[in-house]
Amino acid sequence: MNGSPIRPTDDEARLRARRLLAVAAHGALGTLDPETGAPMVTRVALALSPEGLPVTLVSDLAAHTRALRVDPRASLLVGDPGPKGDPLSHPRLTLRARARFVPHGGDEHARLRRFYLAQRPKSALYADFADFSFVVLEPLAASLNAGFGRAYHLTPQDLLDPA
Amino acid sequence: MNGSPIRPTDDEARLRARRLLAVAAHGALGTLDPETGAPMVTRVALALSPEGLPVTLVSDLAAHTRALRVDPRASLLVGDPGPKGDPLSHPRLTLRARARFVPHGGDEHARLRRFYLAQRPKSALYADFADFSFVVLEPLAASLNAGFGRAYHLTPQDLLDPA
Repeated sequence: MNGSPIRPTDDEARLRARRLLAVAAHGALGTLDPETGAPMVTRVALALSPEGLPVTLVSDLAAHTRALRVDPRASLLVGDPGPKGDPLSHPRLTLRARARFVPHGGDEHARLRRFYLAQRPKSALYADFADFSFVVLEPLAASLNAGFGRAYHLTPQDLLDPA
Repeated sequence: MNGSPIRPTDDEARLRARRLLAVAAHGALGTLDPETGAPMVTRVALALSPEGLPVTLVSDLAAHTRALRVDPRASLLVGDPGPKGDPLSHPRLTLRARARFVPHGGDEHARLRRFYLAQRPKSALYADFADFSFVVLEPLAASLNAGFGRAYHLTPQDLLDPA
């Protein structure tokens, strides 16, 4: 029932979507296999950027990193169902996103590094390796599925906290 | 470190991959947006077919169902990290797969329905709706990531229990 009649987006849906992003320590990242164009889903660690966008830290050795360097189109699924109950009754959010690699050595990298490590202190072990990069997943659109029959389409603006 | 030097596949890796599939109540399904070819990741419920292949039950209203009817290429990520520790230190499995819709009304559908409902009894609420279909995700290849620096490539045969 994932795509069942879409409800009008309201503040509750916006809040729920923002919360799913804010608490996500990891997500399922969808990329395109550069050789075949087939979909590829891998797990990535997540934190929020200073602007509230999802950001991950990826290794050059990872298949998703190679894929995103060729084609930045990505999808991100967040919202952990936990071990109990019907996993489809738990809310989750799918982003359609564009992956932007943050250049090493600049101000943005330094700021993002501080923010990321504050949220994911264990990644200090590898955050400064030359072959690790921060990637901001810039949302283009989102679908919130808040349980059976409760689906919403959201804009990037819906995902950002009101200023 | 997802793609770090690949280790030779051994029985421990095979067993781990099979277990990740066997216990997965849900997974992150990667499909291709039929309009743009962009990746799309959504949550699906999972069970095993009598042959030990992952199978899901999808609604015609869901975006992934429409996507798979246009292009059966799919990816499936399983392996729940749970709430504690570094999510990247928990084992997970990515399948490259081909989605096969099981025709309604045939023997295979009846057998699969029995198997599926035995594993996911709550789906009895909608399993018999005309717009719900069983989809077998036939593995073409798999990547097991058993934690940092422990990556393996597996064949479909590696994923099946020895006869």
